[in-house]
Amino acid sequence: MTSTDRRTLGIALVGHAFMGRAHSHAWRSVDAFFDLPWRPVPVALAGRDAGKAATAAGRLGWASSVDDWRKLLDRDDVDLIDICTPGDSHAEIAIAALDAGKHVLCEKPMANTVAEAEAMAAAAEQAAVRGVRSMVGFSYRRVPALALARNLVAQGRIGAIRHVRAVYLQDWLADPGAPLSWRLDRRRAGSGALGDIGAHIIDATQFVTGEAVTGVSALLDTFVTERPLPDGPGHGAVTVDDAALFLGRLSGGGLASFEASRVATGRKNALRLELNGTHGSLAFDLEAMNELWFHDHTEGPQTAGFRRILVTEPEHPYTGAWWPAGHGLGYDHAFTNEVADLVIAIAAGKDPSPSFADGLAVQRVLDAVEVSAADAGRWTAIAGAQP
Amino acid sequence: MTSTDRRTLGIALVGHAFMGRAHSHAWRSVDAFFDLPWRPVPVALAGRDAGKAATAAGRLGWASSVDDWRKLLDRDDVDLIDICTPGDSHAEIAIAALDAGKHVLCEKPMANTVAEAEAMAAAAEQAAVRGVRSMVGFSYRRVPALALARNLVAQGRIGAIRHVRAVYLQDWLADPGAPLSWRLDRRRAGSGALGDIGAHIIDATQFVTGEAVTGVSALLDTFVTERPLPDGPGHGAVTVDDAALFLGRLSGGGLASFEASRVATGRKNALRLELNGTHGSLAFDLEAMNELWFHDHTEGPQTAGFRRILVTEPEHPYTGAWWPAGHGLGYDHAFTNEVADLVIAIAAGKDPSPSFADGLAVQRVLDAVEVSAADAGRWTAIAGAQP
Amino acid sequence: MTSTDRRTLGIALVGHAFMGRAHSHAWRSVDAFFDLPWRPVPVALAGRDAGKAATAAGRLGWASSVDDWRKLLDRDDVDLIDICTPGDSHAEIAIAALDAGKHVLCEKPMANTVAEAEAMAAAAEQAAVRGVRSMVGFSYRRVPALALARNLVAQGRIGAIRHVRAVYLQDWLADPGAPLSWRLDRRRAGSGALGDIGAHIIDATQFVTGEAVTGVSALLDTFVTERPLPDGPGHGAVTVDDAALFLGRLSGGGLASFEASRVATGRKNALRLELNGTHGSLAFDLEAMNELWFHDHTEGPQTAGFRRILVTEPEHPYTGAWWPAGHGLGYDHAFTNEVADLVIAIAAGKDPSPSFADGLAVQRVLDAVEVSAADAGRWTAIAGAQP
Amino acid sequence: MTSTDRRTLGIALVGHAFMGRAHSHAWRSVDAFFDLPWRPVPVALAGRDAGKAATAAGRLGWASSVDDWRKLLDRDDVDLIDICTPGDSHAEIAIAALDAGKHVLCEKPMANTVAEAEAMAAAAEQAAVRGVRSMVGFSYRRVPALALARNLVAQGRIGAIRHVRAVYLQDWLADPGAPLSWRLDRRRAGSGALGDIGAHIIDATQFVTGEAVTGVSALLDTFVTERPLPDGPGHGAVTVDDAALFLGRLSGGGLASFEASRVATGRKNALRLELNGTHGSLAFDLEAMNELWFHDHTEGPQTAGFRRILVTEPEHPYTGAWWPAGHGLGYDHAFTNEVADLVIAIAAGKDPSPSFADGLAVQRVLDAVEVSAADAGRWTAIAGAQP
Repeated sequence: MTSTDRRTLGIALVGHAFMGRAHSHAWRSVDAFFDLPWRPVPVALAGRDAGKAATAAGRLGWASSVDDWRKLLDRDDVDLIDICTPGDSHAEIAIAALDAGKHVLCEKPMANTVAEAEAMAAAAEQAAVRGVRSMVGFSYRRVPALALARNLVAQGRIGAIRHVRAVYLQDWLADPGAPLSWRLDRRRAGSGALGDIGAHIIDATQFVTGEAVTGVSALLDTFVTERPLPDGPGHGAVTVDDAALFLGRLSGGGLASFEASRVATGRKNALRLELNGTHGSLAFDLEAMNELWFHDHTEGPQTAGFRRILVTEPEHPYTGAWWPAGHGLGYDHAFTNEVADLVIAIAAGKDPSPSFADGLAVQRVLDAVEVSAADAGRWTAIAGAQP
Repeated sequence: MTSTDRRTLGIALVGHAFMGRAHSHAWRSVDAFFDLPWRPVPVALAGRDAGKAATAAGRLGWASSVDDWRKLLDRDDVDLIDICTPGDSHAEIAIAALDAGKHVLCEKPMANTVAEAEAMAAAAEQAAVRGVRSMVGFSYRRVPALALARNLVAQGRIGAIRHVRAVYLQDWLADPGAPLSWRLDRRRAGSGALGDIGAHIIDATQFVTGEAVTGVSALLDTFVTERPLPDGPGHGAVTVDDAALFLGRLSGGGLASFEASRVATGRKNALRLELNGTHGSLAFDLEAMNELWFHDHTEGPQTAGFRRILVTEPEHPYTGAWWPAGHGLGYDHAFTNEVADLVIAIAAGKDPSPSFADGLAVQRVLDAVEVSAADAGRWTAIAGAQP
Repeated sequence: MTSTDRRTLGIALVGHAFMGRAHSHAWRSVDAFFDLPWRPVPVALAGRDAGKAATAAGRLGWASSVDDWRKLLDRDDVDLIDICTPGDSHAEIAIAALDAGKHVLCEKPMANTVAEAEAMAAAAEQAAVRGVRSMVGFSYRRVPALALARNLVAQGRIGAIRHVRAVYLQDWLADPGAPLSWRLDRRRAGSGALGDIGAHIIDATQFVTGEAVTGVSALLDTFVTERPLPDGPGHGAVTVDDAALFLGRLSGGGLASFEASRVATGRKNALRLELNGTHGSLAFDLEAMNELWFHDHTEGPQTAGFRRILVTEPEHPYTGAWWPAGHGLGYDHAFTNEVADLVIAIAAGKDPSPSFADGLAVQRVLDAVEVSAADAGRWTAIAGAQP
Repeated sequence: MTSTDRRTLGIALVGHAFMGRAHSHAWRSVDAFFDLPWRPVPVALAGRDAGKAATAAGRLGWASSVDDWRKLLDRDDVDLIDICTPGDSHAEIAIAALDAGKHVLCEKPMANTVAEAEAMAAAAEQAAVRGVRSMVGFSYRRVPALALARNLVAQGRIGAIRHVRAVYLQDWLADPGAPLSWRLDRRRAGSGALGDIGAHIIDATQFVTGEAVTGVSALLDTFVTERPLPDGPGHGAVTVDDAALFLGRLSGGGLASFEASRVATGRKNALRLELNGTHGSLAFDLEAMNELWFHDHTEGPQTAGFRRILVTEPEHPYTGAWWPAGHGLGYDHAFTNEVADLVIAIAAGKDPSPSFADGLAVQRVLDAVEVSAADAGRWTAIAGAQP
């Protein structure tokens, strides 16, 4: 659709680091690829340093900039606030934005504590009554291969799920000389590998299976307990985990294992998910993100085997909006797909997914992992998860 | 750099189908990811249907539109013309643009005949004297894994090249019911799989090896000789090849084999390149475009083997401009990388690569393939290629 | 060496089912491929049914047969007794054989209980004083790729081990219609997936790392609790686990996760082992048993990546005895390699490996897994494992 | 079946190097795994050096040895002669053996010239009338995955074949310091990579497709023209090819490309075969010999993809005789499968496959490749191949 005959949706971005750059690219690109009912318009970028914010706005395609996210709340041209700051500020910004009647997209992890997440979920529920929408940014749900995995599970293609094994392996902290950053500070980041990347595999598991994690037995560890300070001589204490392992059970009765590590040498971004059901199996690795492996156990033994589906066909989720078959997508396309879905939901007056309730569910699992790990691996039920 | 302190480069696009959409995305995105000396500004889009051109301009991010590419030639705000039309119009537009002092980016295949390509290369050479630059759009040169392959060859990591095997396999014409399109008409497309995708593997081979193909022995075939007309009942004749196979020799003495097919069932975009040199080997498959496989033959047998390099490190070509290690790129990123290099070359007053001379070299190989195939596979030397 | 100038070693086999067939092939083949100091001679096969034993002896290459393993104990032509019966008979036969001065090769799992395993280990220790040797048949230690993995770890190529993830996935019990067999009866088999295939990944982990598992937190489950009786109508209760998952810690401080399942649809024999150390990583999958993947983290980022080592070079463990490079081995070759090592150790007057003490160590981990699983996943230390 | 109630088949082996060792293992093992109608008995081994032959016989399991293959011809206990000598002696031995009424198994390449191969095929045809059988040892036909590939083609699962690409890549001659051996001497070996490994991909193509290669366009080259003498100082001339590339056409109209090289660094035994048909595709790599990749093009796009069939199921060719699903076979198992089929055919009074006529067909393709390469790649029809 052309720009003239559509209602616009004014977007404001808070934060302009890694995630801000990814979201800017998505907002800048989405209207060229998707047939959207409303036209998103990047109107403002907020950052604490006015000069840096202005520079970022110019480079990333935002029409204006402000030095305080609060200045966005009463602007009429802002319909949606997209939160790309560290986790400890999410609750305050999101709740204020929802109260001000702005739709909210909030990066993951949604919060640093269950209490914050509960407050956010409550605010989102109330806002929805007033037609104000919210979404948490588990962008991997919009990787076409994972979206296809969910569809195949929902279609019953793998039957009842008996096993999930989910790992997320990176290695950027393998070197003990890697400096201490805010991500290694429990007060800023909440936790380490657990919340940073473990949150992704919990959400991906719940998304693809359509089930909840109902309990866990966990083990956390920190291999490098001191790291060089980033801004001068000396070392400081690492107060978060390097690695998190936990066993879990799904609401449908299946067994699951999870591992998140930032010291797994040679693995760069290996979010791997494997599901074994009574009728088939699925396997995925984010390092080869355009592929989904599917075994159909109902097929005869002569030709049964894991097949590599190149998830780039027009019939696959999202890919029809992009390039011809076989022309793969990259990391950033998931964000563009995400904001497309968000705009479509807002225009349709529907709640987008994943909701803040979904974000809260993940937060509760993260919390149970820490409780179990502190209690010698004792099985710990997830509050509110239906067994 | 911010927008205020940089010279701008006005860009105009001709054509707004598949390639026009890809190029628009690149021009719209490049300044957010790369530190460019000049700031590209998408000023105008040209298309024969004024209404469609205006709609496309709005959606794809161009400030204005015109209904004839000739109207771009004397506009002061246009510094570069980006040609995304079918091959039979490339020569006319490119030569006119260069004559008008506009830099040119021309999609591949650069031309439909050697004569056209020679005229274009001559025009480009003359324009370069006046500081007007030209580039042919073999975008795969900017896939990081292929760029890394070239670097490793240039560093001598695989030694003298003895073997290249290059295939480009697709399957969108496997079904005899797929309709007759302009791509199956020799007058519009020049040739079939040969020029469409065979051109890519010729250029990729010459780019990665740094050598020229000096002769070929070829075989062409068309499996489906009639196809349904797209706009009504009845069938029409297919006048191009479905598949092209040829053996070749490189200027350094190595042997090469090439195969391009659009009827290879199950292969969607399988541009595969494998090189065996005296000191090592490389392998690449565009269906897994973030990976390069490298065997170091100088290593001892205990641990030697093909290693899968995930070409996403900051030290790899182009990837430092994008996302953290392990976060892969997709099809479109190659175009963004391409226009970044083009802007940098123009600002530096240097000739970008691949040049129109490179495009001509590919065209001469395509021509020799057709000559050889028509003469029972007889060895046919490539005009101008140094043995 | 020729047959005339070498001392012989008389071999007797107990059992002639799956494992007996594999061991027979090994004993029949080993002298043709390895340069052995002594010549093994297959002299007798024992089986409870005299007729079946005689038939099996003829077919599998044994010179004679007996209907009771006890008849082997005082035969002068029997130097070694190879035990291939179900686990509940291992302790009795092995201890009697050792007491009779016969060397013993005992299939895994070495025993059904820790008490049996302790008795066997004690008997083996006493026998060794008298020059009588014993070995437990964890044949996967002799898969060349796993033996190479151990060598690389021992050489320090991956540094200190931080992570092990070990799974063994099969699917032959995924179908609820698969009949009840002795392997599903706790009294005969000891446990289910845990002892059958979980034992392999425990041993493989301890072998490759050279470290001990010091504690576990576990979860067991049985998905199909009743199965058809094999010999008539009706169903019987399954009294063992279908799947076993456990987290563990290694004596060097690393973290490990384990999963054994016989209901993982599409996975046929997927013993997968991945290790991440401070200097590198290794990965293996028994379904592609001739390959070992190695990442050298000390290499620069330009070319670092997991390399696929085809473990078939003359320089690799065992493979020099077989075929030229690139000509892979299969499942049975590990048994031939195993008995070669056993004969060499006996001739050299040395204790072969893995010892009955190694078998006991695995049994203690299996036991701790059951204790932990019965106590809500509580962390359970392994008796005797050095932290 | 037991040894007492079956007719025996006396086997004699000529040659005891690499192939002799592989065949001995097969003859020694086959009766333990396959239910054979007749019982093969290894009665004699022939080698020119009496001492070496005796030693080899002892080690490889042959009951006796002779110093001249001619001494086997009138022995009543010899029913079959298995020829494992270099190619230049095949014709003489095979024809003499057939004339003497002995069944013959002859290693590949069947002969060094078309004339020899024609004489052998004629002798085999005449012998068959008298119930004397002959087989040429293209053992890869008995790799289960390739046998399954043939079955799927024969079942029509990939439809009409449009493309075959077949390569056989090794690297043991990449090093110019590798010594001159008889395999590099045209008089002994006939040709280089072409006959040694190119013969395998020609036969595999004709076997799997069920079609004949009807013509070729070829290119041969020798990169290392002099090599060190094996037995002293100095160098000698290499008189065979290092690499052979050729394009071909199949009797069903499909296109094929072939490449054989012994200088392809990093590739150890990469016999790769890929077929694209109108209804599907198949891919195989001997370096992962237990896997066959199959794409079913009749399936919908949601889940279509190349599936990795682990060819180890009881329902797959040959594998039911061996181990449980997922337990892979190695290089030598193909020989055991081969002699099983041979014994079964002889007992059934049927001609085994591949016949000497099949061996001749391969020889004619090899010959046409050399003719075409010597004539600038000119298309050269294969004598006797039906277009």
